[in-house]
This record gives sequence, C-alpha cells and structure tokens, in this order.
Amino acid sequence: MKFVYYLENDEKKIGIMKNAQSIVDISDFYSSKNIKKPKDINELLDSWDELFLEDLKKFITENKATSNLTDVKLLAPIEYPKRNLLCLGKNYLDHAKEIKGLKGAEDVIPKFPIYFSKIADPAIGDGDIILNHKDITDKIDYEVELGIVIGKEGINIKPEKVEDHIFGYTIVNDVSARNIQRKHGQWFKGKCLETFCPMGPVIVHKSEIPFPVELDIKCSVNDELRQNSNTNMMIFDIPTIISDLSKGMKLHKGDIIITGTPSGVGLGFKPFKFLKSGDKVVCEIEKIGTLTNIVE
Amino acid sequence: MKFVYYLENDEKKIGIMKNAQSIVDISDFYSSKNIKKPKDINELLDSWDELFLEDLKKFITENKATSNLTDVKLLAPIEYPKRNLLCLGKNYLDHAKEIKGLKGAEDVIPKFPIYFSKIADPAIGDGDIILNHKDITDKIDYEVELGIVIGKEGINIKPEKVEDHIFGYTIVNDVSARNIQRKHGQWFKGKCLETFCPMGPVIVHKSEIPFPVELDIKCSVNDELRQNSNTNMMIFDIPTIISDLSKGMKLHKGDIIITGTPSGVGLGFKPFKFLKSGDKVVCEIEKIGTLTNIVE
Repeated sequence: MKFVYYLENDEKKIGIMKNAQSIVDISDFYSSKNIKKPKDINELLDSWDELFLEDLKKFITENKATSNLTDVKLLAPIEYPKRNLLCLGKNYLDHAKEIKGLKGAEDVIPKFPIYFSKIADPAIGDGDIILNHKDITDKIDYEVELGIVIGKEGINIKPEKVEDHIFGYTIVNDVSARNIQRKHGQWFKGKCLETFCPMGPVIVHKSEIPFPVELDIKCSVNDELRQNSNTNMMIFDIPTIISDLSKGMKLHKGDIIITGTPSGVGLGFKPFKFLKSGDKVVCEIEKIGTLTNIVE
Repeated sequence: MKFVYYLENDEKKIGIMKNAQSIVDISDFYSSKNIKKPKDINELLDSWDELFLEDLKKFITENKATSNLTDVKLLAPIEYPKRNLLCLGKNYLDHAKEIKGLKGAEDVIPKFPIYFSKIADPAIGDGDIILNHKDITDKIDYEVELGIVIGKEGINIKPEKVEDHIFGYTIVNDVSARNIQRKHGQWFKGKCLETFCPMGPVIVHKSEIPFPVELDIKCSVNDELRQNSNTNMMIFDIPTIISDLSKGMKLHKGDIIITGTPSGVGLGFKPFKFLKSGDKVVCEIEKIGTLTNIVE
C-alpha cells in the first residue's frame, strides 16, 4: 500500500495509490470509521493502528479511484516532519571508501553508526526544484537514501522488535552543500539549506517490503547512472540502527530515519561532479518508486 | 519582563514574573485583547507582536499576582521546541583551548561557527532530574549556555537586523554524554539523551538585556564554581551567529539557538570531572536567573 500526500484543487489530501496511475482519497475511510480525518500524514500516524490495514485494503479495492496521478501535484509525504530527520552518515562501505582521504572525512570505516540531523522546511516533492543557493555554494551534491518512517513510539527498542516500530519506507535525497558541510565542522548546516530535502513520491507500507529490507537503490543525474547499490549493503542494518539510535532517546510516530547513501556521489569522483543549474536528479528505490528533482 | 511556563493545580499556564516571588497569569491579558489565549510559549510566539510589550507591562503593573513562585512548579519555558535546538560548538576561546588535543577535538580555534542540533523531548525545568543513563554512559557533562529565543521569522538576516528577530533569552544546560558524543563521530546523539536539555527558569524579554549581550555566565557543581565567564567572550557573537546560520536556512518563531559554553566543563579537567549521581548542577546567567538540576 502506497500512501501519498497531494494537492488537488488547492486542497492537500491524503490518498492511497489504487494502481500506478490512480489515487483513492482516504477521507471516506475515516468517516466510515467515525474517526476525524487526518489533515496530513503526521496526523494519520498519530491515530494509526496496524489493525486499520486490512480494512483500508478492502476500502481501496471496493472504491473507485478519485483522481488520476496526472491531474494532481504529489507533495512530499511528510512536508513538515515534527522533528529534524535522523540521519546516518557513511553507512555504505563503498561510499565510506570513495570519500577516504578527503579533508574532513578522516576515518574510513565507521566502527559505530554516525548520526546527525537534517531540517526539512518543508521537504519538497517529486518534480520540485532544488534551489542552487549560488551565493553560498557551488558544491551541491545528491545522496539517494532509504527513509524509514516510524509508526510506533519507542525507547530502548530491541533489535528483534524494530520492525514493529516501522510504518513504512520512502526515498529521501539528502542534498548536501559540501563546502558548508565541511566549513562548519559538524555536518548539520550543509544538510539544511532550503529545498535540500526532496522526499517521496510515496510511503510504502512495511507490509509490502519483506524484512530484512533488500532493495535496489539508484541515483542518476541527467540520465547518467551515478549511484547503484542495494540496501543490503548498509554497514549498520535497520535493526542495528533503530535499536542503537533509540538507546536513551525516544523515537516518535512520524520520525524519519534516513539510512545513508551508497557510493557515486559527486564528491566521490575525480574531478568532483557536483550538481549544476538545470541538472535532473532521479533517485530510485525498488518497490518505492522514483523521486525526480531539477536544480534551479 | 520574565516569561514563565508553570504547572499549577494540574494545569500548565503562561505567566510573567511580577517580582522575584510572584507570577501574574497572562490569560486575562489575552481575553482583554480578544485574542485566543496561547496554550504554551510556542503559541504565544506565533501570535506575538512587539507592540504588545507596553500593554503587557501595564497589565502586569495593574494586576495582582495570581500565584507565588513557591506554590507552583516551573517548567521549561518551551518544553517541546518545534524543531531541534540549533547549537554552537566551541564558541568560547578558553573552552576551545581546554579540550585541545583530546581525541575527537582536533582543531583548536574554529575559523567558522560549528553548528549541530539537540533534541528536547521534553526540555526539563528548574529542579528536575537529569537521568544518569548508566547503561550507556558514565561520562555525563554539563555546559551552561545562553539560549536565544527567536521571535520573528527570517532568512538571510543581516547582522544589523539580528536583534529584531530575537524575542528573548534563557539558560540551557547542554548536557552531553561525552563517550556517546565521540563514539558516533558527529556530536548529535550524545547531546540528545532523555532529560539532557534543562532550560529556564524564565525567558527574559530582550528589552531588559542591552545589545550587544554582555552577561556573566557561570556553572557550579555541588557549590564548586566550575564555569565562570561572560557572554562577551564568545568567538562568534550573536549578530554573526544569527546572520550566518540564517544564510539559506529560515529561522522560525520559537527556534532556540544555544550559543556555546565557556571553559570549565568536566571534560576540561585532568582527571575529568564528569557528573555523578546526586550531583547538583547550577547554571546561572546574569539578569536571567539560575537553573538547578540534580543528577539521578
């Protein structure tokens, strides 16, 4: 089941993909259950119960599509996450190696997960423009990442319980200004410029993605394949990440954890291949879809 | 004018200190203005207009105190910031020097501000317990910091306009688990354990603190003075921080920027002086007050 958040006739709506082309608005599902209709996916997650799943599947099967994908504007599934995204750094071996020796990237293979945070203000959707921020950077880079959307609150989550806390999966492009990421010592600021968080196009419910998660993950720039890996190549896998991250720190419904990027980022080439105005960046993850953005 | 958020008869309220001992609940001020009463200081900031200031001063003068400080529980002024706190690292020269040479602290004097983020989930108030998280750390450290509360949204803010965007000032203890801060490469996780964000006791409106901000800042542990400096010793001053941080990244009402800590943290002593169970930590900033917490 693929959840979408979309704009239709100036109204933002939550829907489910009925097939590759059409969407069913879920408003009627909530009215049939006498539950207040969520205004966005954060609110949907607040009232979400895994028991809804079978009823919702039935609802989608029995109801006609309300919109065609071509007639609406898909938005980031969670435009305004309640907290900064929780991010992993250097979590694919080949990526850790490609940036080895670059200034500010001292250690080769992390012994422990590297965590930082990223602002989405808001996250931008499929088709949206990544601003070039040309006054402060000419080193904008792409990073395709699997995003995990948390569906159940938890702290000190055991590795074997991790899947219970996941709602679903999405794609995030962890756009980064490499000069700013390095200049300020910690990575935070270079990850947080406006429009630097493309997300979507959908959140796929976990029931459609077998655990452990093994999905092909790719990124191309102007149709040149740059990143091409599989999420099973992560150094720290999803049970390790979520159990470790939640030690002493509560995860909440709606939190988004992005799990690191494979090799092939612009910083990994000699000479560097940073993004230029007009570039088309396509992030793709198997079973989730493609997330395309153009650089201003 | 000192804004407080407090618990009285199981109800959370916003008030203003009438004097050192007593509080005026501000509900009646809002009803007199026909504005919906804010439920917390985030909401107060959403509807704040600097023009309210004189009316509010008059309201406080003309109205009797509604509570004595001794009869209420002060809470963190903003228990749940809308976003992670925006934090400065190594922003006092003496602190940058005291941790020189320690693993994970390579550079001595930052050439540019170091930014990271901190979760408050929730921020804890004056008198609250800092959990010891003994399963994962025995290296908990204190860091007294001046917190700036943003009152007006802005991006690419010019240095000379910075004060316009400030609502007021508070104290934050940027409690840190040094082993976790180091273990994960980036500082984020070691700053984000539950209860690691004591804040308060008040937010002082900027009208009471001349700009540039020159306030004595101190921290003591069990009555031993450990940190003792002045905010005029920051490497990057407030106009520099806010103008630089807001380049390409919007600041919002309710954002809290914490501006770094002076020397004297536990990590700066040989041998280290980390916090132990039962320790009393008192953070103090001139014109704001004292923020006292006990380690579990």
